[in-house]
Amino acid sequence: MKKIYVIGLGPGAYEELTIRADRALQDAEVVVGYTVYVDLVKAYYPDKEFLTTTMTREVDRCRMAFEQASQGKKVAMVCSGDAGVYGMAGLMYELSAEFPEVELDILPGITAALGGSAVLGAVLGHDFAVISLSDLLTPWEIIAERVKDAGKGDFCICFYNPSSKKRHDYLQKACDILLQYKKPETICGCVRNIAREGEECQILTLAKLRNTQVDMFTTVFIGNSQTKVINGKIVTPRGYQI
Amino acid sequence: MKKIYVIGLGPGAYEELTIRADRALQDAEVVVGYTVYVDLVKAYYPDKEFLTTTMTREVDRCRMAFEQASQGKKVAMVCSGDAGVYGMAGLMYELSAEFPEVELDILPGITAALGGSAVLGAVLGHDFAVISLSDLLTPWEIIAERVKDAGKGDFCICFYNPSSKKRHDYLQKACDILLQYKKPETICGCVRNIAREGEECQILTLAKLRNTQVDMFTTVFIGNSQTKVINGKIVTPRGYQI
Repeated sequence: MKKIYVIGLGPGAYEELTIRADRALQDAEVVVGYTVYVDLVKAYYPDKEFLTTTMTREVDRCRMAFEQASQGKKVAMVCSGDAGVYGMAGLMYELSAEFPEVELDILPGITAALGGSAVLGAVLGHDFAVISLSDLLTPWEIIAERVKDAGKGDFCICFYNPSSKKRHDYLQKACDILLQYKKPETICGCVRNIAREGEECQILTLAKLRNTQVDMFTTVFIGNSQTKVINGKIVTPRGYQI
Repeated sequence: MKKIYVIGLGPGAYEELTIRADRALQDAEVVVGYTVYVDLVKAYYPDKEFLTTTMTREVDRCRMAFEQASQGKKVAMVCSGDAGVYGMAGLMYELSAEFPEVELDILPGITAALGGSAVLGAVLGHDFAVISLSDLLTPWEIIAERVKDAGKGDFCICFYNPSSKKRHDYLQKACDILLQYKKPETICGCVRNIAREGEECQILTLAKLRNTQVDMFTTVFIGNSQTKVINGKIVTPRGYQI
């Protein structure tokens, strides 16, 4: 059986790969991925063939991986973070009907919710929701409803794709929805370039976050009603008596 | 500055550790953790001192780690999955005020939501909520409200701690809440012993899940309205046109 490894690279640093993902990349002959992510790991696997496409060419990129595998090559399809969380794993399965001779092996990775939470402290220490604010593939009405329900349920929340050139006010709109259910002083955090060069983070209130501009390399965290700051770190307690 | 690595081990297999977690464990002199998790990695780090406590002794376990670090030892506190997601990272920060000379370094890991989703296919391919059904530290009313809001928002959902001896009907109660918002034929999945010996999984409908008994080693997944089964794998599409 021909096989494609669908690999979550984690936030970006080589050290954030799982040992299994590292071994799979070593085993592969061809590495397929979005240019930016392939560049993050290229130096560690110098003898591989690299095939890349730009953003928004996800379907082409996945077909490219299947075609390489069909030709008998060992293929690794790489995604940032986790392969399944807004990654290529789902799309690969959807396309797999066209390539019945190819088996998929999904290798999970550290998604930005986990990587960013660790940079900030322990933000996601209790029940949490992960929501992408990108409306490229999901209507804004559905996103807004989910933001509302996550706010209502006092979830910790992690926003992926909080902003882009065309959607500069989406985070503001999401914060306005949350402010109907969460206090303005709710602890929030932003992490930019998680585990990459230039990593930076800030802690702020929901009221302040509402008036903050972030870019597409930023992951945004909203605490629940118990979230607090301890020595410069965001902590959402599980509820242990200490 | 004295330091404790707070390490997410991932689902259990050594290969699921990140490279950074592996290096931190190699660097440590003392490894502190819950007996079951320490046993999972013991064989790979034979020259370490291992200190364990049983379940429900989390506060003692964390203090033990700080005391070892205060004595000048390099300490690794290990958690299953991710160190922050229902793990010890938050509690360690809460206790850190008592040990100001000790710095914490949180190393994220593959939490069961990611590990289990990859076993089943790509369940969490769109917005998702992670909810623990354990009421040891959280009142059931809050859990029930979150289950309702996650159901209402058409989130994919991952349940941690879906059952125990004392809470044998909690998953049933959670499913009954979800059935008010999600169709009975919604695709669900259970994974037991993720990435450990005896790993097993099953795919079933929400209606069937409602009448299924699972144990505490099981992670439960509920799809959203778009989730489907492709070649025996659960896939939640992101929305790409193929």
